[in-house]
Amino acid sequence: MKTNPGRFFEDFRLGETIRHATPRTVTTGDVALYTALYGPRFAVQSSDAFARAFGYPQAPLDDLLVFHVAFGKTVPDISLNALANLGYAEGRFLRPVYPGETLSAVSEVIGLKESSNRQTGIVYVRSTGYDAAGAPVLSYCRWVLVRKRDPEAAIAEEAVPQLAKAVQPADLAPALPVLDPKAYDAALAGSPHRFGDYAVGERIDHVDGMTVEEAEHQIATRLYQNTAKVHFDAHAVKETRFGRRLIYGGHVISLARALSFNGLANAFSIVGINAGRHVAPLFAGDTVYAWSEVLDRADLPGRSDVGALRLRIVAAKNQPCGAYPDRAGDGYDPAVILDLDYWALMPK
Amino acid sequence: MKTNPGRFFEDFRLGETIRHATPRTVTTGDVALYTALYGPRFAVQSSDAFARAFGYPQAPLDDLLVFHVAFGKTVPDISLNALANLGYAEGRFLRPVYPGETLSAVSEVIGLKESSNRQTGIVYVRSTGYDAAGAPVLSYCRWVLVRKRDPEAAIAEEAVPQLAKAVQPADLAPALPVLDPKAYDAALAGSPHRFGDYAVGERIDHVDGMTVEEAEHQIATRLYQNTAKVHFDAHAVKETRFGRRLIYGGHVISLARALSFNGLANAFSIVGINAGRHVAPLFAGDTVYAWSEVLDRADLPGRSDVGALRLRIVAAKNQPCGAYPDRAGDGYDPAVILDLDYWALMPK
Amino acid sequence: MKTNPGRFFEDFRLGETIRHATPRTVTTGDVALYTALYGPRFAVQSSDAFARAFGYPQAPLDDLLVFHVAFGKTVPDISLNALANLGYAEGRFLRPVYPGETLSAVSEVIGLKESSNRQTGIVYVRSTGYDAAGAPVLSYCRWVLVRKRDPEAAIAEEAVPQLAKAVQPADLAPALPVLDPKAYDAALAGSPHRFGDYAVGERIDHVDGMTVEEAEHQIATRLYQNTAKVHFDAHAVKETRFGRRLIYGGHVISLARALSFNGLANAFSIVGINAGRHVAPLFAGDTVYAWSEVLDRADLPGRSDVGALRLRIVAAKNQPCGAYPDRAGDGYDPAVILDLDYWALMPK
Repeated sequence: MKTNPGRFFEDFRLGETIRHATPRTVTTGDVALYTALYGPRFAVQSSDAFARAFGYPQAPLDDLLVFHVAFGKTVPDISLNALANLGYAEGRFLRPVYPGETLSAVSEVIGLKESSNRQTGIVYVRSTGYDAAGAPVLSYCRWVLVRKRDPEAAIAEEAVPQLAKAVQPADLAPALPVLDPKAYDAALAGSPHRFGDYAVGERIDHVDGMTVEEAEHQIATRLYQNTAKVHFDAHAVKETRFGRRLIYGGHVISLARALSFNGLANAFSIVGINAGRHVAPLFAGDTVYAWSEVLDRADLPGRSDVGALRLRIVAAKNQPCGAYPDRAGDGYDPAVILDLDYWALMPK
Repeated sequence: MKTNPGRFFEDFRLGETIRHATPRTVTTGDVALYTALYGPRFAVQSSDAFARAFGYPQAPLDDLLVFHVAFGKTVPDISLNALANLGYAEGRFLRPVYPGETLSAVSEVIGLKESSNRQTGIVYVRSTGYDAAGAPVLSYCRWVLVRKRDPEAAIAEEAVPQLAKAVQPADLAPALPVLDPKAYDAALAGSPHRFGDYAVGERIDHVDGMTVEEAEHQIATRLYQNTAKVHFDAHAVKETRFGRRLIYGGHVISLARALSFNGLANAFSIVGINAGRHVAPLFAGDTVYAWSEVLDRADLPGRSDVGALRLRIVAAKNQPCGAYPDRAGDGYDPAVILDLDYWALMPK
Repeated sequence: MKTNPGRFFEDFRLGETIRHATPRTVTTGDVALYTALYGPRFAVQSSDAFARAFGYPQAPLDDLLVFHVAFGKTVPDISLNALANLGYAEGRFLRPVYPGETLSAVSEVIGLKESSNRQTGIVYVRSTGYDAAGAPVLSYCRWVLVRKRDPEAAIAEEAVPQLAKAVQPADLAPALPVLDPKAYDAALAGSPHRFGDYAVGERIDHVDGMTVEEAEHQIATRLYQNTAKVHFDAHAVKETRFGRRLIYGGHVISLARALSFNGLANAFSIVGINAGRHVAPLFAGDTVYAWSEVLDRADLPGRSDVGALRLRIVAAKNQPCGAYPDRAGDGYDPAVILDLDYWALMPK
C-alpha cells in the first residue's frame, strides 16, 4: 500500500516516537490568513512596530497558529481514524515563533487504554513542535479515541499517563524576551486593564459572536495541513452520525481567543494549556460566542515585566454568553462547545 | 466593565481626539488576500517590476486596502452602535504605502447633530491613518448615524461641519514619486487608453459581475480587523430589520473598483474620495455590477507625468449596468447600492 | 469601446502573438493562500529548510500555482468568449519559480479550425510565462472552443497544429538545480516510496475527498486574476445550460494534485503536461476524489538524482475512486471530471 490508511488503535506502541511529515515554513502570508479567518486584534501579533517597542524583535506569530501547524502534522499519524479528540494537557509554548521559521513535529506515545468493548482505545501522545535547528518551540499532550481495525487484536502494553492538572508558572515562557511594560501602549493595544486589574473569580462575557462558514473552516484547516477527512469530505460524512462536516476543534479555540480580545485585550500571548475539552461539535452556520473566568494569577519567577493569568474560556454556539453557560449536572449546558484552561501573559 | 460596548451618541464630544487600537503591519500576505477577494488587475499594484519601471520603489498596496485597514481601526470607537454609515468626504491618500509598513489610526470628532426624535444622532469624524513614524498616510471624513443610550441625554455641543464638495487637484497625491509615463507599458497594463483619452461626461459600463459569498466578505472584513457585528453574527442579526448579515460597505467599494478595471485599466491609483454613499445594503448571494462616469479631468500642479480623472462609480446588485442605473426621483434605481465620487490617476 | 468584450473566433489570426496584461509578483502570501485552498503537503514546496537540504535555494512555488497565474493572464484575450477549454499539450515547466518573482504571459495562435456549423471555432495557442528578465519559465499549448461574433464571418487562414503526444524526458526540467537524493528525508516528506518503487501500470486510489465551496473556487480563481465570468457571476449564469457558476478547471487540477499526496508524496515537482481534458464540469458542493496510474518511468539525461514518472490522474466527483472510474464506451464514467497526463519528478 502506498497510501496512508491511518493507524488503528492496535498499531500504536507505548513509548514509540513518530516523526511527522511535511515540515512547514510559516510566513506573513499565513499571518494574513490567520487574521482574515479569525479577526484577532492583539497588538503584539498585529504590529511589528508595537512588538519592537515592547521588546520583541518583530511581531511573533499568533501562538495558536503555531499550535495548529504543529497539530496538523500529527493528524495523518495519530488521529486519521480517531472518533474524538478527548483532551489536552501540559501544553507549553516554549518560545515566540516568527515569520520565516520552519516547523516540524514529533509525537511520543505516552499512554494507551483499550475501551471495555474492545472496539476502540484511547491513545495519549506528547507532541512537540520543532524549529529548523531542531529546538523545541511547543509541546503538548492530547488524547484521542481511536478505532481498532480488529476488535480481537491484542494490545501489547497499556498505561494511562499521569498528566499535570496545570502547567506550573515556573515552566511558562522560558524564552520570552525581556519586555518593557512601560513601552506597552495600552491605548494602542485597546484596553487600560493590565495584569493587576484582573481578580481571581472574575468572569467576562466577550459579547461578540462569529458565524462560521464551510469555506472558512476548510481554508483554515488546510492552511494547517490538517487532513482529517471529517472536516472536508461532505460526500463521505453524509453516512456519519452528524451527516455533515465537523469543524476542526482548533478552529473553535482560535475563534474563542479572537473574541476574547473584547475584555482581555492585553492578554497578549498564550503560554500554556492546562486542560481542554471539545464539549460538543460545531457546524457551519453556527455562531460562536465565548466567556472567560480568571482561575488564577501568577508571577513568573525572576520577571517583573509580565504576569500570567490562568484563564478558563468557554465557547458556546448560537447563544450569547451573558448568562455564562457552563457545566450542568453531569455534563454541560447544551450550548457549550469548548472548555479550555490556559495561561496567558499580561503586561504589569 | 472590561468589555467595549461601543460609544453611544451622547458619549462623543465635539473636538475630541480618539486614538484607535491595534496597529497593523500590512504585508504581501494582505496583498495576496486582497487580490484573491476582489481580483484587481491594476498592474502597478500587481507587479513589483512594473511599478519599478514606472517609478515606484516597488508595488504599493492597493489604496483601498490601506483605506479599509485604517477604517477598520475606527469601528470599535466610532461605529459599533451605528445604524448606518451615511457618507464620506475629503478623502486624501497622502502617499503610497508599501508592504512591511505599520498603520494606525486616530479620529477627531468634527461634528455632532442629534436627530429630531432624540433616539439617534449623526457623528462626523475625520479619521487619519498614520505610519510607524507618525506621519499621516491618508485622511478622510465620514459621518454615521449612531444610537443614543438614553434618548433624554443632553448633548454638550452640536455642530455640522462644512465639508468640501471635492478634493482640490492641488491637494492630490502630494508625495507621489516622479513617474515616467513612457515607461508605462500600456499593453502590459491592459489598455491603450490614457489620461488624454477620457472625456468629461463619458460613461463606461464595466460589464462584468461578481457574486459575493458570506465567507468572502467575512474573510475580507476580518482582514481589516473591522469588528462590526452586523457583518459576522448571523444569530444576532436574525432579529434585525434585514434578518441577515450586512456586507461591509467597503467590500462593495473594492468590488466596484476591481470591476472598473474593464474600462479604466490605467486608472492606476485612487488619490481622493470626494463623496460616497452606500445607497442600499448588499447581502451574500447578490451579484455586483458597476458603471462609471467621468466627472472631471485635472492636471496636477507641477506634474506632467500623470493627470487626475474625477470619476463617479455606481454599483448595482443583480442587474448589469448597460442601462446605467442611477438616481431616480428622490432616490435611486432600486438596484443601486453605491454611489462614489473619487479621483484616480492616469498616466499621460 | 474602452471595455474588453473578448475576442471572438474570427478575431484571431494564425501566427499572431498576444502579450497579455497584468504582470504579477508572486509572494509567500500567494503560497499561503494556495496551501489554504488545496492543502498540498509536498515537503519541497512547504519548507524552505527541506528544500535547501535537498538542493534548492529555497522552497519553490507549487508548479500549478505558476501555471494558474500564467493561465489567468491569457483569459481576457483568449477565452473570454470560450464555450469550453478542450485540451492541453506540450506543457513544460522550465525552471522553479520563487516568491518575489514577477510573471507575465504571451500567447501565440498556433491553430484555428472553424466548426462545421460556423457558429464556433477552435483556437489553439501556445502560452508562455516569462519572468521579469524576459526568460521563459513555463510553456504549454491549449485549445478552446470560441464563439463567433458573426457566423458568416470568413476565417483568413486555418490550420490544426501537430502537437506531441508527450513531452520527451530530455526536455523535462532543463534548469532544475542539482539535487541530493540522500538529503531528501523521506520520513519528513511523508512516504518511503521513491522513483524505483513505482511500476508502470500501477494504479493508486488517493482515498481522500475534498468538497468545494463557492467562496473557495472564487477566491482561488481571483488569486490567479482569471476573469472568466462563468466562475463569478451567479446572476448571469442563471440563464446558461448549467444555471450556475462553473468551477475553473485548474481548480480541479490543483485539488487532484493535492489529494495525490496520499500515494505520491515524493512526486515533488510537476515538470510536464502531456495531455489534459476537463471531462465534465465541477460545481460548488461537489466532492472531488482522484486516482492515478503510472504510465511511464524515465531517467533524465545526465541526471542521477531524480527520475520522472509519467502519471495519469483521473478526478471524479461525488464518488470515491476505489473502483478507478475511467473511460467507458465512447466517453467516460459519468463521475469523471478530469483526465490529466503529466510528468512528475521523484528522488532516486
